[in-house]
Amino acid sequence: MVMGINGKFPGPTIRVKVGDIVRVDVTNKLNTEGVVIHWHGIKQRETPWSDGTASISQCAIAPGETFTYRFTADKAGTYFYHGHYGMQRSAGLYGSLIVDVADGEKEPFEYDGEFCLLLSDYWHQNVHQQEVGLSSLPFRWINESQSLLMNGRGQYNCSLASRYNESATLPQCEIRGGEQWAPNVLSVFPNRTYRLRIASTTSLASLNLAIGNHKMYVVEADGNYVNRTEVTDIDIYSGESYSVLFTADQIPYDNFWISAGVRARLPQTPQALALLNYIPTPESKFPLSPPPVTPRWDDYGRSKSFALNITAAAGTPRPPKSHERRIVLLSTQNKFNGHSVWAINNVSLSLPVTPYLGAIRYDIKDAYDQTPPPENFPDWYNVSAPPANPNTNVGDGAYVLVNGTTVDIILQNANMLEPGASEVHPWHMHGHDFWVLGYGEGRFAEEDEKRFNLTTAPLKNTAVIFPFGWTALRFVADNPGVWAFHCHIEPHLHMGMGVVIAEGLDQIRAMNVSRDALSCGLTGKMFAAEDARRRN
Amino acid sequence: MVMGINGKFPGPTIRVKVGDIVRVDVTNKLNTEGVVIHWHGIKQRETPWSDGTASISQCAIAPGETFTYRFTADKAGTYFYHGHYGMQRSAGLYGSLIVDVADGEKEPFEYDGEFCLLLSDYWHQNVHQQEVGLSSLPFRWINESQSLLMNGRGQYNCSLASRYNESATLPQCEIRGGEQWAPNVLSVFPNRTYRLRIASTTSLASLNLAIGNHKMYVVEADGNYVNRTEVTDIDIYSGESYSVLFTADQIPYDNFWISAGVRARLPQTPQALALLNYIPTPESKFPLSPPPVTPRWDDYGRSKSFALNITAAAGTPRPPKSHERRIVLLSTQNKFNGHSVWAINNVSLSLPVTPYLGAIRYDIKDAYDQTPPPENFPDWYNVSAPPANPNTNVGDGAYVLVNGTTVDIILQNANMLEPGASEVHPWHMHGHDFWVLGYGEGRFAEEDEKRFNLTTAPLKNTAVIFPFGWTALRFVADNPGVWAFHCHIEPHLHMGMGVVIAEGLDQIRAMNVSRDALSCGLTGKMFAAEDARRRN
Repeated sequence: MVMGINGKFPGPTIRVKVGDIVRVDVTNKLNTEGVVIHWHGIKQRETPWSDGTASISQCAIAPGETFTYRFTADKAGTYFYHGHYGMQRSAGLYGSLIVDVADGEKEPFEYDGEFCLLLSDYWHQNVHQQEVGLSSLPFRWINESQSLLMNGRGQYNCSLASRYNESATLPQCEIRGGEQWAPNVLSVFPNRTYRLRIASTTSLASLNLAIGNHKMYVVEADGNYVNRTEVTDIDIYSGESYSVLFTADQIPYDNFWISAGVRARLPQTPQALALLNYIPTPESKFPLSPPPVTPRWDDYGRSKSFALNITAAAGTPRPPKSHERRIVLLSTQNKFNGHSVWAINNVSLSLPVTPYLGAIRYDIKDAYDQTPPPENFPDWYNVSAPPANPNTNVGDGAYVLVNGTTVDIILQNANMLEPGASEVHPWHMHGHDFWVLGYGEGRFAEEDEKRFNLTTAPLKNTAVIFPFGWTALRFVADNPGVWAFHCHIEPHLHMGMGVVIAEGLDQIRAMNVSRDALSCGLTGKMFAAEDARRRN
Repeated sequence: MVMGINGKFPGPTIRVKVGDIVRVDVTNKLNTEGVVIHWHGIKQRETPWSDGTASISQCAIAPGETFTYRFTADKAGTYFYHGHYGMQRSAGLYGSLIVDVADGEKEPFEYDGEFCLLLSDYWHQNVHQQEVGLSSLPFRWINESQSLLMNGRGQYNCSLASRYNESATLPQCEIRGGEQWAPNVLSVFPNRTYRLRIASTTSLASLNLAIGNHKMYVVEADGNYVNRTEVTDIDIYSGESYSVLFTADQIPYDNFWISAGVRARLPQTPQALALLNYIPTPESKFPLSPPPVTPRWDDYGRSKSFALNITAAAGTPRPPKSHERRIVLLSTQNKFNGHSVWAINNVSLSLPVTPYLGAIRYDIKDAYDQTPPPENFPDWYNVSAPPANPNTNVGDGAYVLVNGTTVDIILQNANMLEPGASEVHPWHMHGHDFWVLGYGEGRFAEEDEKRFNLTTAPLKNTAVIFPFGWTALRFVADNPGVWAFHCHIEPHLHMGMGVVIAEGLDQIRAMNVSRDALSCGLTGKMFAAEDARRRN
């Protein structure tokens, strides 16, 4: 079972132009569940109530109700949209969102055609059961997905790749024609150049994508142009998007595989495959060559090298030379009342009922903890060992940023509960791009700042922290609103791995926040009380 | 997976006394689903917003929110409570609700002890998948349940009864002690008399319950005292409750089985069993006798005979001698845009977003169709054959009753889409008891009214229509509010088998309807607009 949109899974691709005011009416036709849609990578300047984050920017849209999202498409690029309530993204609530350059403008690179590949992972177990398992005692982990999907298509119980591999553990898929799981076919004319827009909305998997026999040139990352970089494959974490160019320069009369396989976790899921079809070769012709092999899951050196090779294209604004505030966020795996959770600076995020945006707009102080969470973690904390005290706290405090300040965030990874273990976490920020100033091993130290890349640091909205490492980000708090900043791995966010950033409180208090977004919690009660006052 | 309450499944038994004002704070801890709780059998006089029916008496309680139900326990008896949103009752959201006589009062029969048995059925398939299947093209029926439960306990993949039956298709359950599925044990002292409070909240199954070797005496039905009737077994449909007395009059040093098995559908689910344990016989002693055999599923003559034997106890108010209005409700199986639905007088109920109670209170006419549904079905309609035109309509109109009028409802069954097929449907009315005036075969005719039982007609809140038959009900519209009246089979209600009764519109408009119940739909928008007006 998946959640679809307008009868489709994934939801329809939305395609707009820079400067468009985009209006999306979302009608919730689910039976009993609320819903919101987040427009991943869109800044939502002056429309923070359209960010589509339940408990942060709005109340969930109740069954039968319609909520209108209105926002400006501010920057050309490859984006996507998805549910941001419970684990509804995992349930299949997502689709592609493409912003083209404005009329009369040109992309800074040329291509003859383009394709979208929205990557995801798929479990047979119902998302509600996954949620319950993650919150249960004993803890039940969701385990690895049954399938990886490209534009909603993947295989189970058979593999397209096993044709090439005698020792394959899965049988070869038998295609009779018309199968819903049949691979996506990307048909190209020989010697033409194409743009492949790749986005990952996986619940869990970090992926590596490659096109058999074809080099790729990365030109865009998270909606930002980057220096054209030749690669054989790309690592893509949940929440990221890339555009790559490739030229159909192989001998025609053959087809080729595009593969996406699991990285950064021991793979237990077959690769997702799509077919690169050279016109006029029949689509049904199996490629002569096997699909590209996904690099070893734990070859983090390769991943770091790929990440470091992504640099901002000329013309990209450079980061301010210094920060006015630094927040260090330590990610730890912990226990709360025996339950497995993730915590940031010893606080596991538990979202309140009243959306922060409404609480701030109407100055309702009871809506969430007015004490912001810690700016750092203690000096004595050893990031290389399991937490000495595994227990943590839950909370819903928010980091408050003064409008216009330059803020550094140091994402600090650490050892998990199990000795010797640390995982990658792709952190996604709402409402902002940030500059990725650098990556490092171990605990971040003051002198590491000297190594920050202040010239070609790429702008992104999602950046990974590597096992036992740190990642340094910088951004300017110039977008009043309340923004989630969180690990984009769905079960990790569900287990508390995120923070809330309240930016420009004075500006929010002067905003005309959409009341349609605030019918729940203390804002809803305020509206009802107002009605009662008028009538009495 | 089941929905629990306060960490329990079924929810905790609530026990109150006549005259108590009952307050229940329901906090929704589900991740993404709304919730309501219906107090099945409670009249909700002067508190119709506490009836707990989503879209009718209130908006669903959103995740994280608390709604306070407050109502008067008006009549002693055996009741239960359950979810009334989507198919959440099927998901396990239910528990027992017992109303004792007021202090100083006595029940009109004596007993030495009592037990509650709340009957239900259980599917392995997630309720959301069931809902999606029922709404899909092609239609996917939920099929028979995997288990029948007594107070939440039942067996799967083994049967307690197979010990007695060499040709059993299921292996015998092996009890090691401490199993969650172990049968309920009802421990009794020899020669004492006990009250067994039996209620059925099944999603689909009609049941028959018997106690091995013991006669039972029915004394209560749906919270109304009935003439003491000796029976060997009782038929109990979803939505019904009965109290029976039995005396532990068998030779001690043995235990006995209490069985509940499927009626009115070809059984594919093993009986639910509980153990009647004669103190001091060890609970672990298997009864010498096999469990009572459930009567043949299609022996409707036996069912009708049981139903007719239930008569009002002396002192029960008699029905008014005549009606002021008659509404005939034809139940048909139909198609709507190819989807399988149930319809009443050619309208399949589809609930609106704004609760009727709020729409009427605030005179919001756009909230639902102001044209009431038909009062009858055409003369030419042949109830003995499949519908000539299988297609029907969906709608959300309400029957409007003038306060104080005596209303007859004739529930008319009919042939389903398949020739020769007709099923039982237990119809449950909110806000009222009704007198069951009679049952008949074929199409109700004017002269059938002469056979109405106007002397000992039992008061009930749930009454069954038998295949190809009719059932005549009478009630006085003396409880202003908006009330659901529907087939208590969960998938049938989900497929539209119900009507809405709006009673005493003028009285509702003067009511102080709880605003907490109305934060959704057009009432929610009204509150928000009011806030905007005040601030501008």
